[in-house]
Amino acid sequence: MLQTYLNEHKERFLNELFDLLRIPSVSADSKFKDDTRRTAGFVREKLTAAGLDNAELHETEGHPVVYAEKIVDESLPTVLVYGHYDVQPADPYELWISPPFEPTIRNERIYARGACDDKGQFYMHVKALEAMLATDGLPCNVKVMIEGEEEIGSEHLGKFVAENREKLKADVILISDTSIIANDVPSIESGLRGLSYVEVEVTGPNRDLHSGVYGGAVHNPVNVLCRMIASLIDEKGHITIPGFYDRVVELTAEERAELAKAPFDEEEYQRDLNLKAVFGEEGYSTPERASIRPTLDVNGIWGGYTGEGAKTVLPGKAHAKISMRLVPDQHPDDITELFSKHFQAIAPPTVTVKVTPHHGGEPYVTPTDSVEFEAARRAFREAWGKEPVPTRGGGSIPIVALFERELGIKSILMGFGLDIDALHSPNESYGLFNFYKGIETIPYFYKHYAELKKAPVEA
Amino acid sequence: MLQTYLNEHKERFLNELFDLLRIPSVSADSKFKDDTRRTAGFVREKLTAAGLDNAELHETEGHPVVYAEKIVDESLPTVLVYGHYDVQPADPYELWISPPFEPTIRNERIYARGACDDKGQFYMHVKALEAMLATDGLPCNVKVMIEGEEEIGSEHLGKFVAENREKLKADVILISDTSIIANDVPSIESGLRGLSYVEVEVTGPNRDLHSGVYGGAVHNPVNVLCRMIASLIDEKGHITIPGFYDRVVELTAEERAELAKAPFDEEEYQRDLNLKAVFGEEGYSTPERASIRPTLDVNGIWGGYTGEGAKTVLPGKAHAKISMRLVPDQHPDDITELFSKHFQAIAPPTVTVKVTPHHGGEPYVTPTDSVEFEAARRAFREAWGKEPVPTRGGGSIPIVALFERELGIKSILMGFGLDIDALHSPNESYGLFNFYKGIETIPYFYKHYAELKKAPVEA
Repeated sequence: MLQTYLNEHKERFLNELFDLLRIPSVSADSKFKDDTRRTAGFVREKLTAAGLDNAELHETEGHPVVYAEKIVDESLPTVLVYGHYDVQPADPYELWISPPFEPTIRNERIYARGACDDKGQFYMHVKALEAMLATDGLPCNVKVMIEGEEEIGSEHLGKFVAENREKLKADVILISDTSIIANDVPSIESGLRGLSYVEVEVTGPNRDLHSGVYGGAVHNPVNVLCRMIASLIDEKGHITIPGFYDRVVELTAEERAELAKAPFDEEEYQRDLNLKAVFGEEGYSTPERASIRPTLDVNGIWGGYTGEGAKTVLPGKAHAKISMRLVPDQHPDDITELFSKHFQAIAPPTVTVKVTPHHGGEPYVTPTDSVEFEAARRAFREAWGKEPVPTRGGGSIPIVALFERELGIKSILMGFGLDIDALHSPNESYGLFNFYKGIETIPYFYKHYAELKKAPVEA
Repeated sequence: MLQTYLNEHKERFLNELFDLLRIPSVSADSKFKDDTRRTAGFVREKLTAAGLDNAELHETEGHPVVYAEKIVDESLPTVLVYGHYDVQPADPYELWISPPFEPTIRNERIYARGACDDKGQFYMHVKALEAMLATDGLPCNVKVMIEGEEEIGSEHLGKFVAENREKLKADVILISDTSIIANDVPSIESGLRGLSYVEVEVTGPNRDLHSGVYGGAVHNPVNVLCRMIASLIDEKGHITIPGFYDRVVELTAEERAELAKAPFDEEEYQRDLNLKAVFGEEGYSTPERASIRPTLDVNGIWGGYTGEGAKTVLPGKAHAKISMRLVPDQHPDDITELFSKHFQAIAPPTVTVKVTPHHGGEPYVTPTDSVEFEAARRAFREAWGKEPVPTRGGGSIPIVALFERELGIKSILMGFGLDIDALHSPNESYGLFNFYKGIETIPYFYKHYAELKKAPVEA
């Protein structure tokens, strides 16, 4: 019955997703403010159309939160679905094969900014809920919260959550914003890294100077910034900020062995990225470096003349955006403070340094022996005919730790993306297989979760 | 007679310069190609109007060279005036108080891109020649060559010079494209630094990546570039490229003592630039670091996300523009090759590095005991009532060394700018005093040069 419904409405589901992908809801860039709001309105409409009640836009000081719910029976367990309708900036536009906001199918994949992160993924929930409500009904209550600021640190969601504790009361949070290992190796992420994101500005002279007249006598702020950044990671891949590793929880040999069971082909990894060699913290494998260890990456750098040709300028300022991925029990505020102090401390006396924190997020780990994780495991088993592998993810969904703190609820990260989806990059895509398979898997979660809550079983 | 003429036509001279400054002749940027050509036409017209003969545009593969001459008498010495009508790019536009191509007078200064470098300076010659021809006549023959590619390395002037050796035959080259120490401390530059300018590209993965999914396991090309740039200068301000200093001519204690006589106030220097401290090569003073010692400066750097907000990207590429100022006997081609080899050698095995040379220029020194230098010295003495100080300049006019090689003629650098002119920077300016005083000084050079050539005197 449900499967038939899904098959019959396949095409419409995809067309609706395309309409959603066409709206450029870039939360970071104020010129897309109206589009971002329009996207929220679109999501509200579709939640109502799916059969949910009380669909509404909740105003924040930034982009609105869309909320809707379907309370079937107060005695049933309640699932809170979280997702985000905002997307990363699409630039550099010239590297896109097809325009980022004109979704296109190539090789069975949907190409568009947000195709996977997170429009394609949260919209699977909207359609799975529609299908359940239109056929067998919902075995749990459901609350849906889709925000518009995930890509800029969910700045105003914390306040919304704190002010709506009662409304958001639930037994589990279900999120599709992560990846599986491969389409024939399904997996569930049991952890996420946190994030500390800062912007730095190094000021030397009070104006751009002629590099001939002043070069050699005035410390060049770009050279200085390079030197400061270079010193943040040593040749063994260790981050040199004092105290940075103090709260990092080292995994036991058993835990590392368990994680190492997930299939990983380093040659294929290098081939896919056209890498000459991998590099990372000494003593850890590539999957470990990208999941259970903290990092420091320059996300952007700029200063001086970057146009065509040659300009002999000694720039007055240099800038960089720097982010650190964090692992339990590092705290983003602590790390941001350690970074700021250290970055000021290593500045030579010739320059002035300003460090501005952007958003942060706490790392997160969920136990794999809970009823909730077991429900997800069973959903995969039934829909995919395979046992999902538990993994630790490298990305961050900062709000997950906040949900646990504010609402006391654990999240289940049941994402359906793939590494090749190119999140945050040009030519982001999402497999048609993954979109449809996700819609098919989600109802099984509700079924098993309802059953397990009636008669809990140790996993 | 001459002085009266100069006074009577003051206002027109300035209006003409304003017309010249209004045309955005940015040679580096192809979108200003037509404007650059229009500027050449303007210069030709004004040379004809000044009374010179055979004013014409000589086509090159780039921007044209403007040439004109006045042969008074074959037996008289011939002065070849060189200048350039192209200007540096004006960005960042938002930092200009008045628009760069709308010349404005504030505090007795002309604000515009090219006000000093070099439109304001070469145009003094056009007006001085006009005044001489309209009054007392020219005591020397004159040839004028104004090019349109100085700011991009005079790429096609070499060929023009080589093909026009006969036409350009002269006894001395006179150039106003440098500065004096102060309006009450006139000076003449006896040396210039050379230039090697390269652009580097560091490529890591084949696309921009999600910094959460890949961060820690994939070497970030921006971090790598910073590390490579940082290693190029050590903590003592020495450049670490092997062989870089091999051909640097060390000045004798006497020569350094002679240069140290030029007045210099380090406190005022720091105050003007709002510098917390100076920094440069250990063992050298600030004026030495900026003139007789070679340098390495990043002129521009870019990579990853540089827009508003925070994007968690691990960029696929990073870029920088890097230039080195050279001193005798360093050769730009040698240095560019040493740089390229070294930069490739220090690249880690995780990335691919590309080095693209931009333009270069040879360093230059002129003897201060020549008849030509003495003529300049006497011109200053007569017009300014002061003895000019010989100095070594930090900037580069790459073509000066080429003139010597190709034509066998020394250049006299009789510039009238000031350090505060902000060449290559926003709010470039040129003092009205300097513009008019330059026009007044130039005819004295012709007078004294003609006299000295008749009866040479040891300076």
